[in-house]
Amino acid sequence: MPSGMQRAPMPLAADGGNPQALADSVVAGNRPALARLLTLIENQTQTGQQALAVLFSHSGQAHIVGITGAPGTGKSSLVNHLATILRHGKPAVGHLAVVAVDPSSPFSGGAILGDRIRMRELAGDPGVFIRSMASRGALGGLAEATSEVITALDAAGFQQILVETVGAGQAEVDIAHAAHTTIVVEAPGLGDDVQAIKAGILEIADILVLNKADLPGADNARRALQMALDLGRSTGAGVAGSTGKSPWPVRIIETCATNGEGVEQLAEEILAHQSYLRDSGELERRERARLQAQLDRLLQAALHRRFIEHQADGRLDEALEQVWRRKLSPRQAVEQLMAAV
Amino acid sequence: MPSGMQRAPMPLAADGGNPQALADSVVAGNRPALARLLTLIENQTQTGQQALAVLFSHSGQAHIVGITGAPGTGKSSLVNHLATILRHGKPAVGHLAVVAVDPSSPFSGGAILGDRIRMRELAGDPGVFIRSMASRGALGGLAEATSEVITALDAAGFQQILVETVGAGQAEVDIAHAAHTTIVVEAPGLGDDVQAIKAGILEIADILVLNKADLPGADNARRALQMALDLGRSTGAGVAGSTGKSPWPVRIIETCATNGEGVEQLAEEILAHQSYLRDSGELERRERARLQAQLDRLLQAALHRRFIEHQADGRLDEALEQVWRRKLSPRQAVEQLMAAV
Repeated sequence: MPSGMQRAPMPLAADGGNPQALADSVVAGNRPALARLLTLIENQTQTGQQALAVLFSHSGQAHIVGITGAPGTGKSSLVNHLATILRHGKPAVGHLAVVAVDPSSPFSGGAILGDRIRMRELAGDPGVFIRSMASRGALGGLAEATSEVITALDAAGFQQILVETVGAGQAEVDIAHAAHTTIVVEAPGLGDDVQAIKAGILEIADILVLNKADLPGADNARRALQMALDLGRSTGAGVAGSTGKSPWPVRIIETCATNGEGVEQLAEEILAHQSYLRDSGELERRERARLQAQLDRLLQAALHRRFIEHQADGRLDEALEQVWRRKLSPRQAVEQLMAAV
Repeated sequence: MPSGMQRAPMPLAADGGNPQALADSVVAGNRPALARLLTLIENQTQTGQQALAVLFSHSGQAHIVGITGAPGTGKSSLVNHLATILRHGKPAVGHLAVVAVDPSSPFSGGAILGDRIRMRELAGDPGVFIRSMASRGALGGLAEATSEVITALDAAGFQQILVETVGAGQAEVDIAHAAHTTIVVEAPGLGDDVQAIKAGILEIADILVLNKADLPGADNARRALQMALDLGRSTGAGVAGSTGKSPWPVRIIETCATNGEGVEQLAEEILAHQSYLRDSGELERRERARLQAQLDRLLQAALHRRFIEHQADGRLDEALEQVWRRKLSPRQAVEQLMAAV
């Protein structure tokens, strides 16, 4: 066991498992072992975390693709088609994983439903592994658990990991942004909020997909997206690669996920972006940013936990009481607590 | 750096303002002073924070209503109608504020656009105050800035504060959940993701709105929502008030925000929930939880900041380097950092 393992930031559940054996099975390609590990990660057990520490040195090979966008854009169907095409393209992706993250779901009921539908569509392909995640299962925070699940899949030898997030809020943006390639999916006719979504989310897109491109209103949506892209370009936003080198040209790919039209072109665009990242040095920059974010999140949690452990005299409760009585503002209360450390 | 990643809070900007005078003006009902204070809060200035500390003792009177739901549900129109009806109802709300939070927007362009449209609709009513917030403007984290803006509006005498969040992710759920009354807005025909959204978000709803109830598909949507509600009830989820007292019955209110149908009923339901909260003791429980969340967030940020200030010897950079080279997992790196404190 690595030194310092006893100082885990989260109280890990002891489960008497054998982390080294589990990690070995996962690296050897044992899928039931992988599924078990992912559950242990979500439940924050000791065995899971120790296996993950072993596996981390095997990670860093996978290409992580984040797919985000508002509900109703047809992301799930699109991801299913994309997975099939990537598996059978040239070069074919030998092992591909799909992680479907639903930050708005405190229970995993919805995710399980989605799973079943997907299993039917991609069933029988041993090269595809699908995992759904909801906040309820992730004790240490969904972003953290997602990072750890990605590390495990990476170490297990999956070359492409598609991380699909439902919704278009900050949590999804964070998770998608932690990817190497970020795809933002839009669709025509999503109503009066679509303007606001576009404005914010375009900034993180490496590839923009207009799905349901066969629906009425697609022409308007395409024009609006193109205008937003041009606007972003002129202000310097919406362009990946702030390295000073020639920037990646964000393009709009039109797809129709119900019949698969345009999805092949999307797969090609993903591979093109992958090459761009490697050649431009942007891949290293993004990978470092991803690890830094992971480190910062864990550090904050560890510091908070240590503070709480040393506040057994009830000073935290007392502070809350003062705030509740409007004697201190939350910020004043924290200043007092920090001064006493 | 990912847009929403927790960073160490920035040191407060000194701006030479007079916090006591500013706070006095805000309490006296001076609107330009209030607008200025909110900007100072978003920019994390010293004057803003000091004024807020003064104002905190004046807060705790407002009823906070969170309104969340997926894009395309027509939340903004609904909130506009609701504001108008609450202002002219019996009893009429004398001073009402709308805070529109867009966590997916790193820049405030979209928010500003929304503002303009709203200003036109609610223009000329001095009893209504509208403020849009995007992540770009909130240096210390959007949830924190939103809490502080609510405190300022509360101290300024607004009896009802409607907090509308765009999107349906964790950030929105957090912000909406910090409200006293949480309204979840659904609409017919949002596509294949709607099932997942419903599953998760229903759990936090005190009032469920089916907007666009005149559209085709409304019958199906209503049945699906009712089934989800019944399912939630039978498993104990979706029911507010875990105090053991008679629970609040979550109902589905059908509205049509374009012509205002049903919005009056929604306003009545909000006032009924307010009475329920007061009578059941649930209001105090929720208010404590809200303050506790605020305290925890500030404490985490303060601890992180202090740690970074004392790590000038570059140990954090060294840890990142080790993680980057796959010598240590992020968790192992944090354990080493914590052991050295």
